[in-house]
This record gives sequence, structure tokens and C-alpha cells, in this order.
Amino acid sequence: MVSVGIRVTVWNEFRHEKSDEAVRAVYPDGIHEAIAAPLRDASFEVRTATLDEPEHGLSQDVLDATDVLVWWGHMAHGDVEDEVVKRVVQRVWDGMGLIVLHSGHFSKVFKTLMGTSCDLKWREAGEKERLWVVNPSHPIAHGLDSYFELPHEEMYGEHFDIPDPDELVFVSWFQGGEVFRSGCTFHRGNGKIFYFRPGHETHPTYFDKNVRKVIENAARYVAPIHGAKPVYGNAKPLEVL
Amino acid sequence: MVSVGIRVTVWNEFRHEKSDEAVRAVYPDGIHEAIAAPLRDASFEVRTATLDEPEHGLSQDVLDATDVLVWWGHMAHGDVEDEVVKRVVQRVWDGMGLIVLHSGHFSKVFKTLMGTSCDLKWREAGEKERLWVVNPSHPIAHGLDSYFELPHEEMYGEHFDIPDPDELVFVSWFQGGEVFRSGCTFHRGNGKIFYFRPGHETHPTYFDKNVRKVIENAARYVAPIHGAKPVYGNAKPLEVL
Amino acid sequence: MVSVGIRVTVWNEFRHEKSDEAVRAVYPDGIHEAIAAPLRDASFEVRTATLDEPEHGLSQDVLDATDVLVWWGHMAHGDVEDEVVKRVVQRVWDGMGLIVLHSGHFSKVFKTLMGTSCDLKWREAGEKERLWVVNPSHPIAHGLDSYFELPHEEMYGEHFDIPDPDELVFVSWFQGGEVFRSGCTFHRGNGKIFYFRPGHETHPTYFDKNVRKVIENAARYVAPIHGAKPVYGNAKPLEVL
Amino acid sequence: MVSVGIRVTVWNEFRHEKSDEAVRAVYPDGIHEAIAAPLRDASFEVRTATLDEPEHGLSQDVLDATDVLVWWGHMAHGDVEDEVVKRVVQRVWDGMGLIVLHSGHFSKVFKTLMGTSCDLKWREAGEKERLWVVNPSHPIAHGLDSYFELPHEEMYGEHFDIPDPDELVFVSWFQGGEVFRSGCTFHRGNGKIFYFRPGHETHPTYFDKNVRKVIENAARYVAPIHGAKPVYGNAKPLEVL
Repeated sequence: MVSVGIRVTVWNEFRHEKSDEAVRAVYPDGIHEAIAAPLRDASFEVRTATLDEPEHGLSQDVLDATDVLVWWGHMAHGDVEDEVVKRVVQRVWDGMGLIVLHSGHFSKVFKTLMGTSCDLKWREAGEKERLWVVNPSHPIAHGLDSYFELPHEEMYGEHFDIPDPDELVFVSWFQGGEVFRSGCTFHRGNGKIFYFRPGHETHPTYFDKNVRKVIENAARYVAPIHGAKPVYGNAKPLEVL
Repeated sequence: MVSVGIRVTVWNEFRHEKSDEAVRAVYPDGIHEAIAAPLRDASFEVRTATLDEPEHGLSQDVLDATDVLVWWGHMAHGDVEDEVVKRVVQRVWDGMGLIVLHSGHFSKVFKTLMGTSCDLKWREAGEKERLWVVNPSHPIAHGLDSYFELPHEEMYGEHFDIPDPDELVFVSWFQGGEVFRSGCTFHRGNGKIFYFRPGHETHPTYFDKNVRKVIENAARYVAPIHGAKPVYGNAKPLEVL
Repeated sequence: MVSVGIRVTVWNEFRHEKSDEAVRAVYPDGIHEAIAAPLRDASFEVRTATLDEPEHGLSQDVLDATDVLVWWGHMAHGDVEDEVVKRVVQRVWDGMGLIVLHSGHFSKVFKTLMGTSCDLKWREAGEKERLWVVNPSHPIAHGLDSYFELPHEEMYGEHFDIPDPDELVFVSWFQGGEVFRSGCTFHRGNGKIFYFRPGHETHPTYFDKNVRKVIENAARYVAPIHGAKPVYGNAKPLEVL
Repeated sequence: MVSVGIRVTVWNEFRHEKSDEAVRAVYPDGIHEAIAAPLRDASFEVRTATLDEPEHGLSQDVLDATDVLVWWGHMAHGDVEDEVVKRVVQRVWDGMGLIVLHSGHFSKVFKTLMGTSCDLKWREAGEKERLWVVNPSHPIAHGLDSYFELPHEEMYGEHFDIPDPDELVFVSWFQGGEVFRSGCTFHRGNGKIFYFRPGHETHPTYFDKNVRKVIENAARYVAPIHGAKPVYGNAKPLEVL
């Protein structure tokens, strides 16, 4: 369970918390701080970045020094500069891990990497969600029981318009009658991606111990692996032609 | 083996044939006609479209009347208008099948749908390629032997930077010592995609009977299936909350 | 939507119906007849076979004349002769389609083909099941809405111990709080397999129009495809060594 | 790169080495010792076991104390007791990692876990094999170049009759004209499986530094992960029915 030396950047749009009293009540320091705190406790090297910083806090230098990027956005996806999106996508291709949370399904970064609309069903009713582990030997399920519950969450329902995930880790049951593929992994280039559903801004989801455990596990799982270095471009024959 | 009623549009960049005598000698009517002819013989409804037509021949009306789009491009990927790329991608999401051939791996359409760089190794040496069927019960392999050969082709070698394909149908052996995942399927939205490697403009690949058989099989395979209609957006609960 | 010429054998254990009045009340002619009737109406060539016939009704001749085998068993999995299991498995490898229903998850045939325990959670409480389509463009979802409901069913819950399915078509929501991967496809050899969850013997599930539609769609989907013929064994080199 | 504390058992049929002078010349201490030595050097806890020991050296106690089992067999697959096969399969389901080498593709253990014939093409001509990395960011490719070569190997060619692998890591090019999916991962129950092609008994393949590196990487990759504990059997509802 190594986390020392893994450099995590937690990115948050950080707008709801400024404009909406109810959200500020739940996340007084911003959603990014609620996500960052347990990662710091688990000995990751953690920094945060937010939309309204220069270059959204995601300069080339910051990204080059990031092993795992965590992404939370919702109301301002359109305000993220295409240049920064391109930079993030390139870093994923180069091996940076990416954890996309909740409403980040509609972020430019996630949609660009998926190649689909990433659309889904949704409802804000504060209903119960129960997340079932469907891949119990997956590292992201480490230390969990066979399911865990969130008493109040926004509902996301199928159909979720993503490519078939490489691995399906969680499926959610919702009180209102829907299901959702809530934990999915993908590879793009040399980078690993984990999409994790929970996290509505009006609920204290990122203080839940199971949610925190999943994000911690995922940060280890998507951290770069120094595999073989791919070679591209024009190539001489290896055999006599 | 139904093809009647499947509307295929064969799209070709159609630039090499105009500027390069050697290519014109192989494909005097354009690569699109060499691809279209056997599909017409197999009773598909076939039209062609090329880059230098208005809207590249891919107006909304044409796309709306297309079940399967075949894409060949190479030297002018950058000349394809983003607006048309967006329109093609949306139609794939809506269910249109897409067959991407050879150097189309670097087209805007394919890269947008994959979410990766789509990079690879290559060499123009006119060497032998042998395509092995690794998924013999796949519909795209219908009527083939366990392998087939192309005496002279451009080499494409691994690593091919694509997401893990949903299905791997062909793997190529090259005389010069490389291998390549030459036939791959993907889903994006409601649309099926087939990438097929062979087809360099200086070789008569699209006159080869096995290559023609594969494209014919693939056109049937990626044709739209009228499955369930997905529903997106805000949703009322199905159970009492 | 071709079904003419597809030869389906519906196999049923046919023990509950003889020993249990409540089951007989629901399926007076046996579960096999309730499954066979709509397939006959859809123009498949249908026969039935049951456990207590000689060779369980699955002689080599019958299997050789079967394109798609539908399997329902529950209380007598152990009474199925290993010789017959071996014969069925070999036919799947040779290209026969297989549809495994409900409690068939614990049949020798399915467990042999999966290579896993196929274990799961279960509860007989006659609760509501809602099946969500998670792969809307899949042929098995043809003609369905985005979900369908069964008012009373046995519950099967995750974790379902199967290999990662090649394609996931349905996920079930249960009133009691569980989820389940209810429609899964697999390839083994040249044969396609579809596992479909619903169908408890005390509920009239096989009279439900959506369940019937799914089985009909699946029978078309798993019917043999005459792809390339694989070649095995000692092989001469294709190139000079 | 943790290996301390991972308990590896290297199992070898160990018959060729006794009966065949040419094999003994290459592997004087047995193939198992050639595989075990570099794993010991890499700080795994390694023991060996062979067919002619009581219970083939794979008593329940040995398996219970094994995190990763490496399997080499060829001429005597039929001599492996079904009871031991069952025990090994159960341990994989319980989480033990399994690395199956070369001719182990036809072992009872591998065939039982795959659910397919595991058949393939083969030729003993001592030809050149080149293994290409097709999944460069996979942990099993750690530290490799984009390909590596073995100057003399038995050829295995497609079609290889396995289920679609969860991950494809290597594809081989053979001098005689064939290709092969040479490095494949699978999950069965809680256990991870890696099939790795090279290793004919008449060639010093297990002394090759790249082959050793792959086996070392794979031993780490398939080592058990303590994920969520799945729960099976009869279950009370979690919601009021």
C-alpha cells in the first residue's frame, strides 16, 4: 500500500462553494480540501488547484509534477480553456493517472478522453445510494465490505453513454429505482482513468469513510507505471526484405 | 447475409490520385470507386463523397441518409472542417456505422472517437503482410481462410495507440519483423466502428478479394441495430421516495 | 430479423413441474413449453428436450441438429450426466449458441464453460425486479424500452462470480436493495453464450412479453456465424526458415 | 516493486529433464530451478514442486502457503490427478495468482479455468520469435523495450482458442510467418492468471533476461489483492419489502 512519493493534484471548479450558501455549509474549505485531506493523511504528496487560478492552476509545470489528477467540476465546464484541456489530455496519454468524480462526467477532459457524449439520467432528491462491489479482487475495492451506502445523494441512472469500461468495479442501486455503473476504469495512451460517481456538492459525500477509501485506493491504482516505452514513427525493418 | 437496404457512403480524400501519377495508375477512378464497386455488386446502396466537394460531400442530409460511412484519408486530414467532423461523430453516436481504413487512423474523426493519439510505427517498403484471423467466429471473418496475404503493403507496427478494442479480429505479420492489431471493433454511443489496416494508395489492395470481403462483412456488421432507445436527462423517481 | 432456419432446442429439467403443485399451476405444460411457444411463433424451428428422456433428450444427433440450445435447470443439476455435459460443451466450442436462464447459472454446462464458481446471492421473496438496458445498441435489446419490470421475481444479487462478460446488456435493480448483471454475453470457442437472469419457477416470468422478446433476440444473436475455419496442430512454415 | 513476502511456488512436470539428454543439457537442475533462481534473487519467497512428488508437491498446506503458482507442464498433463487440479483451481478462485507457461496451455488446470479447448498451431523448428509489447503501460511490461527477441523457440500460432483475454500484453512474430497472443491476463474468481508463451524445453528460454523480467513482473502482478470479501448465498433484504 505505497503512497509515499505519489504526487496528487486535486482540481476543483470551486464555484458552488462561493455562490451557494448551502454548499459552503457542507464544504467550507471547498470540495478540493475535503478530498485532499485524507490523501494527505495517507501520505500522498497533495496539492490543490482551482478554476479561477491562472491557467486554472494547471500550468505545464504543475502537470509535469503530477502523478495523479483528481477532477471535480459541474457548473462551469465551459469555462475551462481548451488549451488546458489539451494539456491535461496529453499528460494522461503520457502516463498521468486521472480520477474523474461525479459531475466531472460532463467535463471537457473526460468527454475528450472517452469519445462519447457521457450523457446520463439524473435527479436531485437526496435519496439513498448503495454501491455494490462487482469486482471484489480489484485494488480499488481494497478494504471495503461487499457494499456501502450513502444516505443522501444525487441520482445518476443508466444509460450512461461511455465506451465499455476496461473494468467495472461498482454498480449503484438507487432508492428511486435506477442503477448506474458507478466505478469504471479506462486506459488512454499510457494513462489510467477511474470514473467514480458519488459526490454531489450539497451532500457531505467526500467526508464518508468509504468514499475516501475508494479515492485513496484509486489514486494508487492509476498512479503511473513505468512500463515499456512505446516507439512511434518511421521504422527500419528488423528483418532482411 | 442481408445488404439490401443498407446505405453506404464511401468517403475518400481523393488527393493522391490527382497529384501522383503512380497512385492514379493504381486507382484511376479514385480509391473510393475501388471500394464502392464490390459493395454495389453485393447489393448495398452505395454513394461516394470526397474532400473537395462542398461540405466534403457530407452534408447533414447525406449523413442522415447514411447507415455506414467508410473513411479513407491520408495527406489532408487537416483540411477536413471541424464542423463536418463534429457532424460525423454525432451521427456515429446516433447509430451510424463507421469503417476507418488504413491511414484514416490519423483522421480527426477517428482520433475524436478514440480519445487517444492513434499513433503507430510505419514503413513504406512494399513488403508482404499476412493477416491472421484471431476471432474466427466473428461475422467480419465470414468466408475467409485462417489467414490471407497481401504481397505488397505499407507496414504499420505496434505499438498502436488505441483504447483496448472491444473485439480484436485480425493481427498482421509483416515481412520486416513487426506485428499489428489490424482489425478492431469499438462502440461509441449507439454506433459501431471497425478499423481495418490495409490500403496503401500505391498498392492495389482494394482490388484484393479478401480485403473486399472484409469490407463487405464489416459494412453489414457495423450497420445500425435498432436496439433500445436510451433516455437521458432529468428523471422522476420510479419508486416512492 | 431472420429466424427461419434457426434450429432451437429448449432444454428443461422438468422436475419442479411434476413435484410441485404451485409450479405446475404456473407452468402446466412445463417451463420448456412456455419458452418454446413464442419462439415457434417467431418462426424458429423449435424442439424441446428434458432431463428424464434418454440421454436427457440431448443425443449427438439432436445436438448436431441444434443451432441454439436454451437451458433451464435448478434442483437436479447433479443428475445431468457428465457425458452429456461434455457433448454440449463441445458443440458450443464448435459453434452452437447457448442461452442459459436463471438458476442455470449453477448448471454443470455453464460452470464448465465459465471456469468459475458462478456463485451469487439470492432470496425468494417475490419482490419487484427492474431490468435496465446498459447497452442500448445491442441486438439483444432490440425493441425494448430503456428498462422493463417484473412484478415478482426471485432476487439474485452481486457478487456474481463469473469472468468479466464480453458484453453487459442488462443490470437489474431489486426492491430489496441489490443489483445484478442480468444479461451477459461470452464467447467460448466458436460459440456464443448469453446468460439471462429472470425465470423463477414459481413466477410467470416466461409469459412476460419483454422476457420473451429478449430470449427471441438472444436466439438470433447466439445463432452460429460461419466465420473463418480455425486450423490447429502441427504446421509447416509459410516463410523460408 | 515489492516482492518481499510474496510466496511463489514453481511447479514443473520435470519429466523431459529425466528422460531426454538434450533437455537435461539445457536445464540440468530442471526447468523449475531455472525459473526459481531469478525470483529468489528478486527477493520473492520461492519453493518448487514437481509432478512425481506425493500429491505432485501441491498439498493443501503448500497451496495455502502459496501466493503465486507458476506452472510448467508438457508431456504428462494426463498424469496430474483431478483432485490436485480441483484444489489448484479452488485456490485461484480464492485469490492465488497463477502464471501458466508455454505448453501449460494444455494443462488440466488452465483448460478448466478457461472453459475452452486452448488449442493452437505449433512447429518445432528452433526459429526466431520477436515479442512485441502491445500494452506498454502494463505492469508486466515494466522495464522492457518495445520488443524483445528469442533466437530459437518453438512456434505457437493463431488461432489460439482462449476466451478474449482481459488484457493483451504481448503479441509474437515468428520467422516462419505466424503471429500469437503471447501474453494474456484473465480473472477467475478472486485470482489473476497470466499466460506467457515462451519456454520450450529444448531452448534456454528461461535463462533469457527479458523472459525472466516478465515472469518476475507477472509474479508481482498476479499476487493476491485483498479487495472486498464477496458474500454469497441466501440474503435478507436491505430494504423493507
